[in-house]
Amino acid sequence: MRLRNKPWADDFLKEHDEVVVQEPFAQKGKWKELFEEPERPLHLEIGSGKGQFIAGMSKQHDDINFIGIERVKSVIVGALKKVLKADTTNTRLVNEDAEDLRELFDPNEIDHIYLNFSDPWPKNKHEKRRLTYHTFLEQYKEVLKAEGEITLKTDNRGLFEYSLVSFSQFGMLLEEVSVDLHADEDPLNVETEYEEKFSSKGQPIYRCRARFQ
Amino acid sequence: MRLRNKPWADDFLKEHDEVVVQEPFAQKGKWKELFEEPERPLHLEIGSGKGQFIAGMSKQHDDINFIGIERVKSVIVGALKKVLKADTTNTRLVNEDAEDLRELFDPNEIDHIYLNFSDPWPKNKHEKRRLTYHTFLEQYKEVLKAEGEITLKTDNRGLFEYSLVSFSQFGMLLEEVSVDLHADEDPLNVETEYEEKFSSKGQPIYRCRARFQ
Repeated sequence: MRLRNKPWADDFLKEHDEVVVQEPFAQKGKWKELFEEPERPLHLEIGSGKGQFIAGMSKQHDDINFIGIERVKSVIVGALKKVLKADTTNTRLVNEDAEDLRELFDPNEIDHIYLNFSDPWPKNKHEKRRLTYHTFLEQYKEVLKAEGEITLKTDNRGLFEYSLVSFSQFGMLLEEVSVDLHADEDPLNVETEYEEKFSSKGQPIYRCRARFQ
Repeated sequence: MRLRNKPWADDFLKEHDEVVVQEPFAQKGKWKELFEEPERPLHLEIGSGKGQFIAGMSKQHDDINFIGIERVKSVIVGALKKVLKADTTNTRLVNEDAEDLRELFDPNEIDHIYLNFSDPWPKNKHEKRRLTYHTFLEQYKEVLKAEGEITLKTDNRGLFEYSLVSFSQFGMLLEEVSVDLHADEDPLNVETEYEEKFSSKGQPIYRCRARFQ
């Protein structure tokens, strides 16, 4: 449930500046300085939602630093709660619309990008809005290190099929594909809220990992 | 049902030399001469089984010449019956083990290859036997024209996931992916016998088309 008005949300996000980056554009080129261990790999989740994935990943991988971007204020407060509860120090949240990642990150600043259950924009006329459209891939390639990777998870068949072709046509290499992730029982898979909901209905979850070259 | 002994099979295959190529290795480099319209594109199905796909395709695409290879004699007789029934003149069948296609075809002789419901060889130790292992891709690339394509259909999740990665790592481009072909209701899809059987059980059918570059 996305509540439109959470008047306390602004205050809550400001209070926790140890997690929520207050001036993210000023951080461009020096994100790693925000973390206790700046030399760790830096992983970025685009669209963190209520934060179950990033909070779970930050606990599972304490040798990686994580940044989660979520544009909806009433949603990112949920992510903040989960990160606070996880009680880790390797995660930062950003409440911004990630229209162009190149405004937030310098070239080669990120090691890995996660796209979890992104809006599928199923109509052909909205193709340009899909986060795996080539204009977005150009952004990702620039902010990622050489041979940087993207991991995509979705329950949306159309977005998955589209993204595999888009990655390939952009010149990326597929490193891993699963067309029924939960049948594989990957013990390291951290579920998002959406994933938990849809997979419990028997809906297959799709995942792929692709690398720029 | 694969009958081991069909003593009449040899005779039946020999009788129909208008469809069954009797000395396929002698045809290397001049396959197109077998057809009424030699300049049409030449499509090859590896593992034609009982022939429902190639017979259906030959009727649907009378502007393409088709070759179907099937190593099991007791199975290819079924394909021969279907091709005879289809009453088309653009299909030839080959009863050989297609171990190395380069013994049967010259470089650039083929326009398109179909791999339909190939043996998945699920054990890791049998990876080399999968028809999308890189040694096979090398063969396909050689006998196909420049930018030649492969279309793969399977109900086997593991083989599909493996093949997408294998194609990509080999440098091929994905042109089309479907992780539930029958949900797409492609009116041009010609079903194989296997496909009909498995999709009627609600099993998703996977398809992809990939291009050499």
